[in-house]
Amino acid sequence: MKKQVITISREFGSGGRTIGRQLAETLGVPCYDRELIVELAKRSGFDPHYIQENGEYATAKSTFFFNLSLQASADGSLPIADQLYIMTCNLIRELAEKEPCVIVGRCADHALQEREDCMHAFIHADKEFRAHRIVELYGERKENPQKRLKEKDDKRRVYYRHYAGREWGAAENYHISLNSGKIGIDQCVSILAQLAK
Amino acid sequence: MKKQVITISREFGSGGRTIGRQLAETLGVPCYDRELIVELAKRSGFDPHYIQENGEYATAKSTFFFNLSLQASADGSLPIADQLYIMTCNLIRELAEKEPCVIVGRCADHALQEREDCMHAFIHADKEFRAHRIVELYGERKENPQKRLKEKDDKRRVYYRHYAGREWGAAENYHISLNSGKIGIDQCVSILAQLAK
Repeated sequence: MKKQVITISREFGSGGRTIGRQLAETLGVPCYDRELIVELAKRSGFDPHYIQENGEYATAKSTFFFNLSLQASADGSLPIADQLYIMTCNLIRELAEKEPCVIVGRCADHALQEREDCMHAFIHADKEFRAHRIVELYGERKENPQKRLKEKDDKRRVYYRHYAGREWGAAENYHISLNSGKIGIDQCVSILAQLAK
Repeated sequence: MKKQVITISREFGSGGRTIGRQLAETLGVPCYDRELIVELAKRSGFDPHYIQENGEYATAKSTFFFNLSLQASADGSLPIADQLYIMTCNLIRELAEKEPCVIVGRCADHALQEREDCMHAFIHADKEFRAHRIVELYGERKENPQKRLKEKDDKRRVYYRHYAGREWGAAENYHISLNSGKIGIDQCVSILAQLAK
């Protein structure tokens, strides 16, 4: 199945971002991850740090705004989180329209659910593997990294459930889900590249 | 990661059984699927049809019996479904101990969770793909195949939740999850074979 756009959802610390970067390099296409935040900051006027920390946190419990985002651009009367979500969806759809690419995070799988030429991947790993990574590679504090994992994953879960109306990390939402700790980062990249070609 | 034993959990109609057979053939190892039922019938005295239809249905809501099954053999005082589960677990562990193999269904991933030399896969697919398959290949009635899918999946979900104490189909429980409808049966086999070697 030749896929133009690959979305990568990921548990915190699973290496999803690294896999996305390496996959994009292998395929010779751009990877959008932090670039999304920079562009959203430009468009919205919000601080990039605010977007990074709060952009994946939902305030309410319906999928109304996702449907709205299909038709409307941001409306000042909506809560900030919802405005941001609509802008994010629109940006992701623009990028996917422009050229083949890899998009990491931000419910991209849901934003692009109508497109048949996408492959949606979920990267996860055991807590020990992820705790080690976030301390060693992300520079998180050594005290209780498990708590930090839980905080970040819970935010992503709530955000996904809220806007996509589905369970984050349920295999059925993705074409492929991989345990990067067991399979290894390089082999994850290799499998995804093989599928994308 | 060289894996001696591969377990395949699957949504009804997703082709998990076919993938298991083809994978076992590719790897040159035995595949246990209906063979489990035949052997369980021999050991228990239950009718194979009874085991097939009721063996993946749980009667209560704790994981007590899984832990018990680690130490004890079947005890006549337990409910039949639980006796059957304990026998199934013990059989799966015996088979995995004996030689490399592929095991389809029956919570094999949970029965073997202590072993590091296993790869656990989950095969799923969209409802349309599965409905088509169960009518065309399994000979299920053409009327409302979606209902049959739901019945079977619900049974497996309850069985898994009951005995494994985890969510059936949650990506985190498996090393790899694949949408066979999108990826294709042959490519699923090829990816799993590549990972197992």
